[in-house]
Amino acid sequence: MSLPLHVQVAADLREQIANGGLAEGDSLPSEAQLVQRYGASRGTVRAALQSLRREGLIAGGQGRPPVVRGGALGQPFESFMSFSAWAEGTGRRPGQRTIEMARRGASAEAAAVLDIQPGEPVIEVLRVRYLDDEPVMLERASYVESVGRLLFDFDPDQGSIYAHLTACGVDLHGARHTIDAVPADEVDSELLEIERGVPLLRERRRTTTLEGVALECADDRYRPDRVTFTIDNTRPSSLGTAPDLRILKESS
Amino acid sequence: MSLPLHVQVAADLREQIANGGLAEGDSLPSEAQLVQRYGASRGTVRAALQSLRREGLIAGGQGRPPVVRGGALGQPFESFMSFSAWAEGTGRRPGQRTIEMARRGASAEAAAVLDIQPGEPVIEVLRVRYLDDEPVMLERASYVESVGRLLFDFDPDQGSIYAHLTACGVDLHGARHTIDAVPADEVDSELLEIERGVPLLRERRRTTTLEGVALECADDRYRPDRVTFTIDNTRPSSLGTAPDLRILKESS
Repeated sequence: MSLPLHVQVAADLREQIANGGLAEGDSLPSEAQLVQRYGASRGTVRAALQSLRREGLIAGGQGRPPVVRGGALGQPFESFMSFSAWAEGTGRRPGQRTIEMARRGASAEAAAVLDIQPGEPVIEVLRVRYLDDEPVMLERASYVESVGRLLFDFDPDQGSIYAHLTACGVDLHGARHTIDAVPADEVDSELLEIERGVPLLRERRRTTTLEGVALECADDRYRPDRVTFTIDNTRPSSLGTAPDLRILKESS
Repeated sequence: MSLPLHVQVAADLREQIANGGLAEGDSLPSEAQLVQRYGASRGTVRAALQSLRREGLIAGGQGRPPVVRGGALGQPFESFMSFSAWAEGTGRRPGQRTIEMARRGASAEAAAVLDIQPGEPVIEVLRVRYLDDEPVMLERASYVESVGRLLFDFDPDQGSIYAHLTACGVDLHGARHTIDAVPADEVDSELLEIERGVPLLRERRRTTTLEGVALECADDRYRPDRVTFTIDNTRPSSLGTAPDLRILKESS
């Protein structure tokens, strides 16, 4: 079976990335160089690059050669923990509007996730998150008191809570993200500017220290017409070089 | 800060798994041995094991010590490609009822994903998938003709299409899964036994060969009250030993 040339070009570049011939951070050859190397048209080269870009293997390239992206994560750790870092990585402008920041007793549900007693104080944050001024996500986060009180020194309209807490020395080491779908409630509807009951893509998050101590639980609801999650997996390579799993959060 | 004992026990076991002291496939010590080692009650040991199980680090343990699970994937490759393999891995009984298997011309949408011309023949499969006799997912898959024709030798009510095609030598090498949320349409509603318009968790899949040739596109719609996707990520370890990303599909 003879494959279309753009598939062959993409496969050859993919192989070079997998075997380290093109390492993370390396620039690819220019379009003109790829045209010459493969004896292909510029359209063919672009189609091949588009495939690699879709797969998250390369990034950038507006006017410059694209660059090889790293590792098993399609996006770096911070991108999956911080809306601001993610948005900036995709070239969109993140924004936020804080509706409420409150210290109150933990609900039974939040307490169970945070391993504390119901009624123990937590700091709750309700924020609308924007991409290029368009509301795309509603964030409901609860922090244990020792962490949340650091937020009262911070203007959550100014940027990333994650970056602020990390700068304060809080060990936001890891998180479990549980993905499901829920109908928009009245608050979602108003703040995300959508009808009640439309499906939202929900990411619930439990963030812990290295030792597994819970610091934050959150319920982030995304407009699925604006943001999706993407998972790439491939059969483990016997060479052990190719990443077998990568995750991307994508905006449209 | 003194942590609850079950958190300390879980952290110690987690550390042993991360540093390879407990390797993939190893059995953990018995509950009695853990009780003695940590000077903890049986309830404390069970709470610690439950945490590790929830995190996907260990599995099994009905009457036997649990076993350390592998690598960066919370579930093996097959589990994320095959509903049957996934269900069996979670100890649930998978089932399926094929509503339709048809050879017809590709829609413009399927053709674009499969890199073929609209109207070129594809084989479409519509199946309800069950866990323990309860409908949890509706699968709409389209296969390119060279692959799909292998399904006419196969009874899709009998089990995994993925396993059948792999046994036929088809190179289902990797897939991109795009996760979003959609309202149940009339077909979803009838076959998943839910009301129209309720949110479903949708996984769209494009499955390719090693060379990136598309073989299948699919639209799988899950009842989010029955199945969720879980992503665990942790800050990359400077030791380079701990997995920084794992994905689980979970049923409830």
